[in-house]
Amino acid sequence: MRFPQSSLRNGETPPRTSNLPFHSTVSVQKLRRFNILILVFRLASFSFSLASAVFMITNSHGSDSPNWHDFDAFRFVLAANAIVAFYSLAEMGASIWEILKGTTLLPEIVQVWFDFGHDQVFAYLLLSADAAGTALSRTLRGGGGGGDTCTAVNSFCVQSDISVALGFAGFLFLGFSSLLSGFRLVCFIISGSRFLLYL
Amino acid sequence: MRFPQSSLRNGETPPRTSNLPFHSTVSVQKLRRFNILILVFRLASFSFSLASAVFMITNSHGSDSPNWHDFDAFRFVLAANAIVAFYSLAEMGASIWEILKGTTLLPEIVQVWFDFGHDQVFAYLLLSADAAGTALSRTLRGGGGGGDTCTAVNSFCVQSDISVALGFAGFLFLGFSSLLSGFRLVCFIISGSRFLLYL
Repeated sequence: MRFPQSSLRNGETPPRTSNLPFHSTVSVQKLRRFNILILVFRLASFSFSLASAVFMITNSHGSDSPNWHDFDAFRFVLAANAIVAFYSLAEMGASIWEILKGTTLLPEIVQVWFDFGHDQVFAYLLLSADAAGTALSRTLRGGGGGGDTCTAVNSFCVQSDISVALGFAGFLFLGFSSLLSGFRLVCFIISGSRFLLYL
Repeated sequence: MRFPQSSLRNGETPPRTSNLPFHSTVSVQKLRRFNILILVFRLASFSFSLASAVFMITNSHGSDSPNWHDFDAFRFVLAANAIVAFYSLAEMGASIWEILKGTTLLPEIVQVWFDFGHDQVFAYLLLSADAAGTALSRTLRGGGGGGDTCTAVNSFCVQSDISVALGFAGFLFLGFSSLLSGFRLVCFIISGSRFLLYL
């Protein structure tokens, strides 16, 4: 009696009987690449938000200059950017965990809903903060109704403009992350696992 | 030879052989209720945005008062609210068409993506406009850096505050519409038709 394996010559690989393990490996690789892409977006979002918050919090040029915490909208910009930077850092940790260990940090259903929900809410938060900051900046430059703050202390206005612009860049990458986590959520709802269907 | 129907007595309903038509009727009814809910949200969003735009455009109290079109942020509020009002009106038309005729106005796949995409973009647009309007209002009230416009002409500030608040209400209902159209999009992606799976 011969076993099927005994017909193989030396150095030959056994014939593949099912495509399932191969398919699964491809899925795992694609999920890994997808997670790395999310990680890159989170890193960009974290960097821009942190830079924006730092630019805003250091925005005081001596005692004769206005201070960022005198302005509601600038406080809002700082708070929103700090929240997004902290959230992006936490999500980066979760992404790295997932790439290394192959499982999500929280249970899978909680993780996908958590990611998408928070991405959406924080994107709205950051966009409204940046819009409010832009409106205040324009007012300070004398674009109607505002005083002549910027003609007196120009460096304050330039620095807050930079902070708001960095916040918009952070919003952009948070929006990309939100698209990807929304896609992952849809995949999870369809197939019951976060492994991707369409990539 | 007796036909199965002939065994029924007078007034008896024939026994149901398959659940398929029943299920389909329920689906149609649920889709109809869902569409009516969307229509209500669109109507609310339209009303609030239109009211906000009207409040803003009529916001000039004589020649000694400031005018809304002197302020960038208020122009942005007016434009965003007018766009959302127009979009909600068009979407209401599409909803009514769908409720009456049973088919979507555009091809189904175009319609679900169009609805969700525009809901998202216009929600971000409206929120950022309202945030900018709020920041300007607070500045005008003297919340740092701004002049004393509101102490001089209070009715102008009150009317622009009302306009911005109505804009936020419009954003709220647009957000609800966006949730529902997102749900419909996911149903469409899963099942290939807009008939609802989980309701």
